[in-house]
Amino acid sequence: MTATENGPPDVDEPWPGLPPLVDQHCHGLLREVPTEVGPFARWLSESDAPPAPGTSYFDSALGLAVRRWCPPALGLPAYAPPERYLDARRALGAGEADRLLLRAAGIGALLVDDGPLPGAQRTGAALADAFAAPAFRVARLEPLAEAAADAAGRGTDAFLAGLAERIAGAAAGSLAFKSVAAYRHGLHLEPAAPSRAELWTAAERWLRTRPPGGRVADPVLLRHLLWSAVETGLPLQLHTGFGDTDLRLHRADPALLTDFVRAVAPTGCPLVLLHCYPFHRQAAHLAAVHPHVYADLGLTLSHVGGRAPAVLAETLELAPFGKLLFSTDAYGLPELYLVGARQFRWALTEALRGPGWPREDTDRAAALLAGGNARRLYGLPEQR
Amino acid sequence: MTATENGPPDVDEPWPGLPPLVDQHCHGLLREVPTEVGPFARWLSESDAPPAPGTSYFDSALGLAVRRWCPPALGLPAYAPPERYLDARRALGAGEADRLLLRAAGIGALLVDDGPLPGAQRTGAALADAFAAPAFRVARLEPLAEAAADAAGRGTDAFLAGLAERIAGAAAGSLAFKSVAAYRHGLHLEPAAPSRAELWTAAERWLRTRPPGGRVADPVLLRHLLWSAVETGLPLQLHTGFGDTDLRLHRADPALLTDFVRAVAPTGCPLVLLHCYPFHRQAAHLAAVHPHVYADLGLTLSHVGGRAPAVLAETLELAPFGKLLFSTDAYGLPELYLVGARQFRWALTEALRGPGWPREDTDRAAALLAGGNARRLYGLPEQR
Amino acid sequence: MTATENGPPDVDEPWPGLPPLVDQHCHGLLREVPTEVGPFARWLSESDAPPAPGTSYFDSALGLAVRRWCPPALGLPAYAPPERYLDARRALGAGEADRLLLRAAGIGALLVDDGPLPGAQRTGAALADAFAAPAFRVARLEPLAEAAADAAGRGTDAFLAGLAERIAGAAAGSLAFKSVAAYRHGLHLEPAAPSRAELWTAAERWLRTRPPGGRVADPVLLRHLLWSAVETGLPLQLHTGFGDTDLRLHRADPALLTDFVRAVAPTGCPLVLLHCYPFHRQAAHLAAVHPHVYADLGLTLSHVGGRAPAVLAETLELAPFGKLLFSTDAYGLPELYLVGARQFRWALTEALRGPGWPREDTDRAAALLAGGNARRLYGLPEQR
Repeated sequence: MTATENGPPDVDEPWPGLPPLVDQHCHGLLREVPTEVGPFARWLSESDAPPAPGTSYFDSALGLAVRRWCPPALGLPAYAPPERYLDARRALGAGEADRLLLRAAGIGALLVDDGPLPGAQRTGAALADAFAAPAFRVARLEPLAEAAADAAGRGTDAFLAGLAERIAGAAAGSLAFKSVAAYRHGLHLEPAAPSRAELWTAAERWLRTRPPGGRVADPVLLRHLLWSAVETGLPLQLHTGFGDTDLRLHRADPALLTDFVRAVAPTGCPLVLLHCYPFHRQAAHLAAVHPHVYADLGLTLSHVGGRAPAVLAETLELAPFGKLLFSTDAYGLPELYLVGARQFRWALTEALRGPGWPREDTDRAAALLAGGNARRLYGLPEQR
Repeated sequence: MTATENGPPDVDEPWPGLPPLVDQHCHGLLREVPTEVGPFARWLSESDAPPAPGTSYFDSALGLAVRRWCPPALGLPAYAPPERYLDARRALGAGEADRLLLRAAGIGALLVDDGPLPGAQRTGAALADAFAAPAFRVARLEPLAEAAADAAGRGTDAFLAGLAERIAGAAAGSLAFKSVAAYRHGLHLEPAAPSRAELWTAAERWLRTRPPGGRVADPVLLRHLLWSAVETGLPLQLHTGFGDTDLRLHRADPALLTDFVRAVAPTGCPLVLLHCYPFHRQAAHLAAVHPHVYADLGLTLSHVGGRAPAVLAETLELAPFGKLLFSTDAYGLPELYLVGARQFRWALTEALRGPGWPREDTDRAAALLAGGNARRLYGLPEQR
Repeated sequence: MTATENGPPDVDEPWPGLPPLVDQHCHGLLREVPTEVGPFARWLSESDAPPAPGTSYFDSALGLAVRRWCPPALGLPAYAPPERYLDARRALGAGEADRLLLRAAGIGALLVDDGPLPGAQRTGAALADAFAAPAFRVARLEPLAEAAADAAGRGTDAFLAGLAERIAGAAAGSLAFKSVAAYRHGLHLEPAAPSRAELWTAAERWLRTRPPGGRVADPVLLRHLLWSAVETGLPLQLHTGFGDTDLRLHRADPALLTDFVRAVAPTGCPLVLLHCYPFHRQAAHLAAVHPHVYADLGLTLSHVGGRAPAVLAETLELAPFGKLLFSTDAYGLPELYLVGARQFRWALTEALRGPGWPREDTDRAAALLAGGNARRLYGLPEQR
């Protein structure tokens, strides 16, 4: 692990016994990372829009976190300016730069959302190879419905049968399902599974009115996807909290899922609330009182930069140590995996050691949060 | 008061002039506290469910707060492991252990919610005796309606008359009323008192369809209970914020009460928002701008453990020093009263002394928050 | 600048290169500031009600912030008691005291909301003269509608034509528009501009039922005002977050504006979210992902007192450095301008220097937040 000169300490060393991280939710890696400042910086925002005139996506807490953690992995001082960093990246060559960044992240296993990303991406074996770590599939639900609709045309029965087949197939090859219902409609969904008649009517209407490639946003169909996933018994990851311009933030409050959480309880199917910010205290409450609810902070700890310890501490106000998971929610840039991992380790040190708790308790809690909880939840083997 | 070795300082000593605490909202005490880890730990969660497989309710901020404050009261080091602590508790005998814990809490007066709790509980004189402090009744509204319904059968007029009698009786023997409308329906209630016709219709329907022992959850009846309490002029405590699995957290935001707060204003009846977290900033705003609104943090400061100073500081961003009250919201375990008291005193020291305010101002504010506000609001005599 | 003895350091000195502040949202100044404690303290609350019995508006985080920053500007020690401070104010004479306070604020330019305030106020040239700084007009939308209605009587066409004229006139003499739709209805408005028929019907109904001097609260008319402002292309400031007793806080969450934000995006019209607390993280998210969205914290940093650095830090978790603006939202008392300015400079120092970021980056970010962003957004000339 690389040494750094200033700012938050390099926490890979201070917590030597911490097992390798399990990144329980991330995405694919770009095949070719841009090395010009503008195109590179576009990956530093959840926005699909260019930055406002006179501003740069580097001028943010996330931009400074990238400058804090990534240059040292390439042999530069922390906070090297973006131009100098990207020059060094180009000089090393993409393969070597990516390798240095990803190995520095210290991620021992990955669960990868198979949903689509812009640009040519590395997934599956190519991703595992890049990390030198096992990569497991998380099956995104909505594209399964869209692929089934593409295949079925206007045939409602064919669509529903095809969807059921795709979900069964995905369950066989995945460790978890993932829903982006928060984006497509919002989390204020009716809690129960739709009736067969309700489902058929919604499917028929969608197929009839769907433009080619159209996304599924009907709340009845989204509920059917959620319940189809619940029936497999695999953990179900749900996007909650902040995201891109598509999102109505107040509709992504995980507390809106409470009735769904209760309806799922008898099945025992684990629900994993992703990201959650700025509703991470609400998510922590759900994780505290419902045995089958888990949560992570995902990209939050990267985006909030120097405030990562505070946001993690806010989450641990109510979240039991056995119910919070680590993830980077990184996508595209190797830098985002490294930043996610370092921000988490740094935040963990600050948040767990701040209150003066005994070292053996914080060591045990840290091991759970870093990977133990994910290994238990997803049935992964112990590592090292 | 006991000395402690590490972690947050024992703040009973640093603030010697602080008057005894007035716990303005708590519950009954178990007659027999379990001394096995599992059954004991069940009281450390708001959940009615067992912990998730592989986890314990001790592995949380609250669990560590109990381990921080309680072992020293029984002569053990802070953070003694749960097994060792419970062994010591058993060895001392329940009576002596309870006595040591409750006296260490330094609570000078209690207002006790008379709502039902699981297990055999000490209330009234037995509770006052255990604390060696006066205990006053807070009358929970919803059980009054349920008892009136049990007595009236299907007679709507008899029910309404009986309920009015019970409320008058409770007012005569209590310092305040308490509503759990947040649990039964949510705080998004119509603000005005229901009309007589509306009330009669709702009551008739409830009595007709109510299963034996059925709870009152009809919003019209809940509003009638609130307004019946308001008419007595006694302070009305309202559950807001987090709680158990029954609760929809987004329906417990105290800001949802704004129209009700305004409707009550002309009567001058004080409204006391309980717990509030994670909407404590919203509660503080209501307390800041409405003269008749007060708030407490209740069990929050216990549950958030090492973050209690931060959460209290967040509340004091807007809450005037004359409008925030102390309570433990403790129930069942003597440990929860001690933890609530110590967490509050510790948080108070940090939150009031952090900003560099003059000592005489912080001393005065601390005395108001610890008990002065409650004594003024509920008409309690000054103590010591 | 004055020296102070204790508490937060006087940050006018530590950050010598910071350009003069641009106060992008404030109000008029009282002609005669009361010098009795009670009447003076009434200006220290957003409430229009007197304080609760036994309490004072000085007993709050804002009260202590006033006592921290203002006495030194008049030659007294920080935290001088209110009586002593007001005696000194009286002895100096109102003119001299106001001058000392306003000059100490270090505000280089002001944008002044022209909405009505209680009491006799200094605005326009008198305000600019008091600050020795240019003062620009922000045209409040709702009074334009009310003046047009006063002039038109019950003539709907005359009203709509008159309103259009007033808006065009205001645009010609102002740097921005301001809406208080959050107060009048709430931010849960339909996002699109009303159709002509919808507008005509709403206007006709309002004119027919409006009592003399009646306020506009109809959501269709409020939307028409917003879209009329958007069409001028001037930045549109929107009240969000906390305020006085009129406000339903949960209806002032800026996330409720998301669909409106998206509908405005193609026009390029900048939207400026004011105050935002306790939804400042939601506002920061909108500013992070929508290029045309900006935000400020307004009166928040004054009201939260010793917590100003924490609240600013929470906002900068997601808000890009190029999208957050400074304002005091001060009104009435010169003290509130000084407190707003000092709290901001102090919070800036703490929030930007805390995470260990490089000095040149924090200097640049501080200059943007203090005034650079406002100068770029409103087209103000560089100063000094």
